[in-house]
Amino acid sequence: MIIVMKPNSKEEQTKEVCNVLESLGLGVHISKGKQVTIIGVIGDKTVLNDVPIELMPGVEKLVPIIESYKLASKTFKPESSVVDVDGVKIGGKEIIVMAGPCAIESKEQLFEAAEAVKKAGAQFLRGGAYKPRTSPYSFQGLEEEGLKYMAEAKARTGLKIVTEVISHKSIEVAEKYVDMFQIGARNMQNFYLLREVGKSKKPVLLKRGLSATIEEWLNAAEYIMSEGNYNVVLCERGIRTFETATRNTLDISAIPVIKSKTHLPVIADPSHATGKWEFVLPLSRAAIAAGADGLMIEVHPNPRCALSDGPQSLTPEKFNELCNSINQIAALLDREYKIHKH
Amino acid sequence: MIIVMKPNSKEEQTKEVCNVLESLGLGVHISKGKQVTIIGVIGDKTVLNDVPIELMPGVEKLVPIIESYKLASKTFKPESSVVDVDGVKIGGKEIIVMAGPCAIESKEQLFEAAEAVKKAGAQFLRGGAYKPRTSPYSFQGLEEEGLKYMAEAKARTGLKIVTEVISHKSIEVAEKYVDMFQIGARNMQNFYLLREVGKSKKPVLLKRGLSATIEEWLNAAEYIMSEGNYNVVLCERGIRTFETATRNTLDISAIPVIKSKTHLPVIADPSHATGKWEFVLPLSRAAIAAGADGLMIEVHPNPRCALSDGPQSLTPEKFNELCNSINQIAALLDREYKIHKH
Amino acid sequence: MIIVMKPNSKEEQTKEVCNVLESLGLGVHISKGKQVTIIGVIGDKTVLNDVPIELMPGVEKLVPIIESYKLASKTFKPESSVVDVDGVKIGGKEIIVMAGPCAIESKEQLFEAAEAVKKAGAQFLRGGAYKPRTSPYSFQGLEEEGLKYMAEAKARTGLKIVTEVISHKSIEVAEKYVDMFQIGARNMQNFYLLREVGKSKKPVLLKRGLSATIEEWLNAAEYIMSEGNYNVVLCERGIRTFETATRNTLDISAIPVIKSKTHLPVIADPSHATGKWEFVLPLSRAAIAAGADGLMIEVHPNPRCALSDGPQSLTPEKFNELCNSINQIAALLDREYKIHKH
Amino acid sequence: MIIVMKPNSKEEQTKEVCNVLESLGLGVHISKGKQVTIIGVIGDKTVLNDVPIELMPGVEKLVPIIESYKLASKTFKPESSVVDVDGVKIGGKEIIVMAGPCAIESKEQLFEAAEAVKKAGAQFLRGGAYKPRTSPYSFQGLEEEGLKYMAEAKARTGLKIVTEVISHKSIEVAEKYVDMFQIGARNMQNFYLLREVGKSKKPVLLKRGLSATIEEWLNAAEYIMSEGNYNVVLCERGIRTFETATRNTLDISAIPVIKSKTHLPVIADPSHATGKWEFVLPLSRAAIAAGADGLMIEVHPNPRCALSDGPQSLTPEKFNELCNSINQIAALLDREYKIHKH
Repeated sequence: MIIVMKPNSKEEQTKEVCNVLESLGLGVHISKGKQVTIIGVIGDKTVLNDVPIELMPGVEKLVPIIESYKLASKTFKPESSVVDVDGVKIGGKEIIVMAGPCAIESKEQLFEAAEAVKKAGAQFLRGGAYKPRTSPYSFQGLEEEGLKYMAEAKARTGLKIVTEVISHKSIEVAEKYVDMFQIGARNMQNFYLLREVGKSKKPVLLKRGLSATIEEWLNAAEYIMSEGNYNVVLCERGIRTFETATRNTLDISAIPVIKSKTHLPVIADPSHATGKWEFVLPLSRAAIAAGADGLMIEVHPNPRCALSDGPQSLTPEKFNELCNSINQIAALLDREYKIHKH
Repeated sequence: MIIVMKPNSKEEQTKEVCNVLESLGLGVHISKGKQVTIIGVIGDKTVLNDVPIELMPGVEKLVPIIESYKLASKTFKPESSVVDVDGVKIGGKEIIVMAGPCAIESKEQLFEAAEAVKKAGAQFLRGGAYKPRTSPYSFQGLEEEGLKYMAEAKARTGLKIVTEVISHKSIEVAEKYVDMFQIGARNMQNFYLLREVGKSKKPVLLKRGLSATIEEWLNAAEYIMSEGNYNVVLCERGIRTFETATRNTLDISAIPVIKSKTHLPVIADPSHATGKWEFVLPLSRAAIAAGADGLMIEVHPNPRCALSDGPQSLTPEKFNELCNSINQIAALLDREYKIHKH
Repeated sequence: MIIVMKPNSKEEQTKEVCNVLESLGLGVHISKGKQVTIIGVIGDKTVLNDVPIELMPGVEKLVPIIESYKLASKTFKPESSVVDVDGVKIGGKEIIVMAGPCAIESKEQLFEAAEAVKKAGAQFLRGGAYKPRTSPYSFQGLEEEGLKYMAEAKARTGLKIVTEVISHKSIEVAEKYVDMFQIGARNMQNFYLLREVGKSKKPVLLKRGLSATIEEWLNAAEYIMSEGNYNVVLCERGIRTFETATRNTLDISAIPVIKSKTHLPVIADPSHATGKWEFVLPLSRAAIAAGADGLMIEVHPNPRCALSDGPQSLTPEKFNELCNSINQIAALLDREYKIHKH
Repeated sequence: MIIVMKPNSKEEQTKEVCNVLESLGLGVHISKGKQVTIIGVIGDKTVLNDVPIELMPGVEKLVPIIESYKLASKTFKPESSVVDVDGVKIGGKEIIVMAGPCAIESKEQLFEAAEAVKKAGAQFLRGGAYKPRTSPYSFQGLEEEGLKYMAEAKARTGLKIVTEVISHKSIEVAEKYVDMFQIGARNMQNFYLLREVGKSKKPVLLKRGLSATIEEWLNAAEYIMSEGNYNVVLCERGIRTFETATRNTLDISAIPVIKSKTHLPVIADPSHATGKWEFVLPLSRAAIAAGADGLMIEVHPNPRCALSDGPQSLTPEKFNELCNSINQIAALLDREYKIHKH
């Protein structure tokens, strides 16, 4: 951390700041410029997290130098992490596809979707049993009943199961049925929930908040990891911008940036980001071309009848086309997507 | 709601859409323009919440006409609501000030702050016992012990007590000690938490999410109200923009907009929004001048020693000056702030 | 400026960077932390503007410490500047109000508006002769004819005249008729135009770009000042955010921030920011309460017939009410707005 | 266009609005819902551009249904346009790459870059002679001298030449030397400049403004086209978001959206968007995978010595690698990039 003193600060003020730092066990390094003096702080800066140095007389501002997360940082662990979800490895050579309906509506709908996505080569079935909806008057999910269908779908197809959890209660219930918890965008900074899934051993898919910076996103991962659960996979799902042509803006540019900062795997969700099925194929290609480790795609056997987010769902046919295309790009990048040949 | 058909859509496609709408009990009104046909939908549109009309052949887009919230809407209840918190009325003629430290650190710190803010005329003591912090390594709050200090501070000063809750557990504990629950910006769309405070009878201070639109914010209020708790007060606390000179951008412009859309009271929190104490006074004045019903201000007996957010805290002296200034502006607007004369 | 080296950089890389800096005549100050080494750079950093130090091996990033503008900076000139526009002083004790129609439509419309705003106490008549419109099919302004009406309106009322210029040609023409040039938001980084008005001696009203940071805005002022024209007044007119309830978000929070960084006067334009007349009064009050030196307000004798931006225009009656209200707030802040008593 | 009346508006107010519309030659279609009445407007709505219907009593808001641009719209011209630049076709099957230094610094630098990009297969040489820089103290370009080097580089390599113009003067000068004008992001809404290049016959590369919506971008294209110059190519170059890890956020998601709205070709510029060379390769791949017609890439023979934007420049070797990779993805998408085999 660097402390920048005000242009008109006095030497004794600089000294006082240094005294405080040294009393906290930190080293200091003073550098006097023509206009301003700066103080380099050496040592474990976490002791400064709760000491408002900015308020000391003569101090202009603090400039952090090192990221605030540790366990999630590439500095801490330079080699890429591979997260194992009941035998399926995320972050390795293979491209992972999680697909299924936004909301679980019925056993039939889920099984039909499961078979279709399995056939196209997906490794995971996604499906919402607890749906966080903007309006309290929209369909809120089948809850435990939906999770039972998920477990049954797994038994039939061998697909791994991922579902969103929204509270301690839903964690308790979901723990029995699913392979991976999902933390939704709106809960990315629900620190209580992050700690709760951190206490579990199950892998966690952590979606990026709508206006979260990459640093905040990695700090959210840090919350989970700091409780002992290192099995975190990040999911870029669109950020909020001024643009109104799509629901959100899928931040594909964040994918290589994330890869430069953390060892955790990252996948992309173009369905939620755009809200329109016709953009899902080109953006899926783009995400993989940018280096994503996988995709989360909404697939519904009959999108026109979907109870939630139909407009962004692919039909099984379109999804199959998407998988074929991804497969080809993966091969170019020396990755692979194990598509099933029929 | 209006359904816009594609420029090249066919007449039978328009008919099919109308058939679906009518089968749901809705009225339709077709209007053929030179380039496009539009369908006006008449009746209770909530039946459409989960039917993806956008996906029907020939449909270009849906244009909502009426806001998605009801209980929070001014159309539903045109006259302003006054929320009574243990005798203090928010949303009436009087300007309400909630003040105190960001985090409760010790009994002494809290009592000192309480007496100072009481003396300057505040009606509420704020103080965080459960602190949602970006990094898991920052101070997370004194929890129940902090709430006990709050209750004691109330007993000594008569100030009403408001504190943030972050989980069902913290609601259970806080229910015994405080007069008003606060939902923080990061939890504005934690719908589970919103429902939980909605089941309580205690008034709720609902902060705006960092990138929440006004419509989403009012839908969050709707979640609380739909459970039967109508005692909701909104709090504008800064939105995320591209600007880096301040932590966030206090959206003062939202205050009159909110007043035009909802009957609920709204206050402003310039301390968190800017992150710098020197901007708190001018922005407090501005918020009141724009029509806010009150303010939430961070005050710390000794900001330089604060364990959390010191740089945005006012000293008791500065806070007293702020209260005097607000008092004068309130008088101009035919409102009043009952400042204590000494 | 500080140069942060990568965690795994080598000592010789740090040395090489220092060699380059020293060869450019700069001093260096090395500070070795536990994880990273940083280099403080001492001397005139403008020599580094075009040398990509970031690319040298081992360099992580550059952290600027001092703002990039000089003439506009409060460090350079701590006392507030007062800009004299043909005898009217902006930035002094008096609150300045510029008012009039968005576009000049006819002699009658302009004269009627001029008399109304004069009567309410405005010191400036604003009116667009060259209108930058989003669509090429919208009304683009009366050009020189409109400017002639402006000059005539000045002769009749004594109001000072401010109008937007959009090209070297319009500068040449407007120079003959107006007292102050306005640079519109969309041209804030039209550096060619900034230099052109910088070569003139006429005062310049510089609107903030829709997504300009405060630093970029002050650098735009610097462009004008670097040509010798120090008579720059800033105008906050709303920034682009994700919110769709208003056209833009008036960044009232920027007003005290600007005041802390520059000596230049700053006014606010709530009419363009919100696009809705009903929010103009509360936001005008808020801007003055936050410390703005004045306002720019759209007034049209008959807003319903306006050829441009009618919905955001006040009637003369509403404008009169606004001036009265501003007058009262100005008095509280120990400023004054010389309203005419009738 | 749809006009939404207020919930409590009166029938005679609806009638009055209809009278005004009909007096302007427009058809109306009234649709009465349970809560609100809406009026569908039929006919050429451009007559409404300058009539503030929003201000009529009882009117709540106007909802545009059809985009405001025409010539640029896919509704107007459904088949994709191919822009011919001195024989090179943009928007056809071939992927186009424009490459070269950000700023032209010397004859040697430019020629070296030109030969390198030619060898890797680029069809265009880019290079800035007029540089719009945020600070007036940064290098501003070699102006006409630079353009002469460009023309000479074309003579030596056969590469087409594209350069940014910033004023009527630079257009006049550049017209003699270059094949294509570039309008920079900061001038996207410099409508005067747009009209000036519209009067020319030379193709125009129109960069997206930092916070421009897609609709505004296409309206900027409309300005050029409305003057008779239909040879417009769009260039996505990053938008401004809250994220600070990269300079801007390359909006790859906009590429398929643009393709759904306009027939004009679109390319991407990952160099300026990210500001960091290490992200240029993955994002170039992503842009092509998303459907872009080409790329603009900064290449400098010696990035470490670049006078402008060195950190985002590729070395010729890295650029060659990029071209190879793009070539492979282009083939997958049934497009081609004519890389030169050596």
